Amino acid sequence: MLQLYSYFRSSAAYRVRIALKLKGLPYSYVPVHLLKDGGQQHSSEYQRVNPAALVPTLVDGDHALGQSLAIIEYLDETHPEPALLPRDALGRARVRGLAQSVACEIHPLNNLRVLQYLENDLKVDESIKATWYRHWITLGFTAIETLLVNNPATGAFCHGNTPGLADCCLIPQIANSRRFNTPLDAFPTIRRIEEACLTLDAFAKAAPQLQPDAC
Amino acid sequence: MLQLYSYFRSSAAYRVRIALKLKGLPYSYVPVHLLKDGGQQHSSEYQRVNPAALVPTLVDGDHALGQSLAIIEYLDETHPEPALLPRDALGRARVRGLAQSVACEIHPLNNLRVLQYLENDLKVDESIKATWYRHWITLGFTAIETLLVNNPATGAFCHGNTPGLADCCLIPQIANSRRFNTPLDAFPTIRRIEEACLTLDAFAKAAPQLQPDAC
Repeated sequence: MLQLYSYFRSSAAYRVRIALKLKGLPYSYVPVHLLKDGGQQHSSEYQRVNPAALVPTLVDGDHALGQSLAIIEYLDETHPEPALLPRDALGRARVRGLAQSVACEIHPLNNLRVLQYLENDLKVDESIKATWYRHWITLGFTAIETLLVNNPATGAFCHGNTPGLADCCLIPQIANSRRFNTPLDAFPTIRRIEEACLTLDAFAKAAPQLQPDAC
Repeated sequence: MLQLYSYFRSSAAYRVRIALKLKGLPYSYVPVHLLKDGGQQHSSEYQRVNPAALVPTLVDGDHALGQSLAIIEYLDETHPEPALLPRDALGRARVRGLAQSVACEIHPLNNLRVLQYLENDLKVDESIKATWYRHWITLGFTAIETLLVNNPATGAFCHGNTPGLADCCLIPQIANSRRFNTPLDAFPTIRRIEEACLTLDAFAKAAPQLQPDAC
């Protein structure tokens, strides 16, 4: 059975949980607590599985895969139905571009180790950290909203009327933005897509608060 | 003909230039100066092409595509030879994971707008900014070196003996690290792959200093 090393609050792990559930793939959940014991991701045991000391890791047989987007594409290639990417090259580029607009432009600036660096090395206070956090979300969501609202390929979901890779990335990022009280009024299309996703079991069941390690 | 909106020093644009040259695809180069005029990427004209105000953008006919990794996969799907991704799902996951180890873990923390935020909003001085820059490269390269050295799939290049998506990401990141005097002694495999890449015309000709807007 597939194994997913995850932390309930990691939005990168959340993306993969959604994909696994959209595909209907069973998996065992291996919790990696990013705060306990100085961060369990830094243990030598975990770094044998994932040298980057990041979650998620997907283990399939003898193979340990890192990087959430690479994992989701792997799942899509090895379990093609339901497809998480469209069939046409332009559509695929659009969906990957939207996913990367979250995964390369927003999330990397707001993940735990960056917030820790801001706090411990740059000595910034909570309010400056929160401003930083919201700044990158607002900038990124402004671009994504424009990409969504101006393109007829946008449907009930980011691309057409079935959920896919872009939605797997967008929903965890929205959850993070709510956690840090980021105003979302300027992003009606993003909020509409969130609403559509959250009616689906796959998205609802992948939510942080429902994971075995939630606290 | 394909059009590439690029800035000579943008490492994300550099990735796409390498891919275009590996594929032997002609393209016209449209310079977007990220510093002149308060940043030409912020012009309303450019934001009609790329709402994220980021380079690169690839224009193919009526379609403008953002996000370098999505662009390279698009080129690989529309012009399959030479392939930039292996054929097997595990190999593809590995190559994408390596590419994302650069594109999601290192580069987003060190791109221009982040450095500008550190300087203008957090008021950090040059030396703290340089420490920040090198910190994320060193952390990321430490993980990538381990992923490369411990895996028999590594060849003359990141994956086997032909250059691909991971190399397209790694070489520009090494160029950036040299620009900021980041020690690379601890990364012999990364340096060996760089050497192999730079013997190839595609990598050599995509280098920042050879672009029409270099200064």
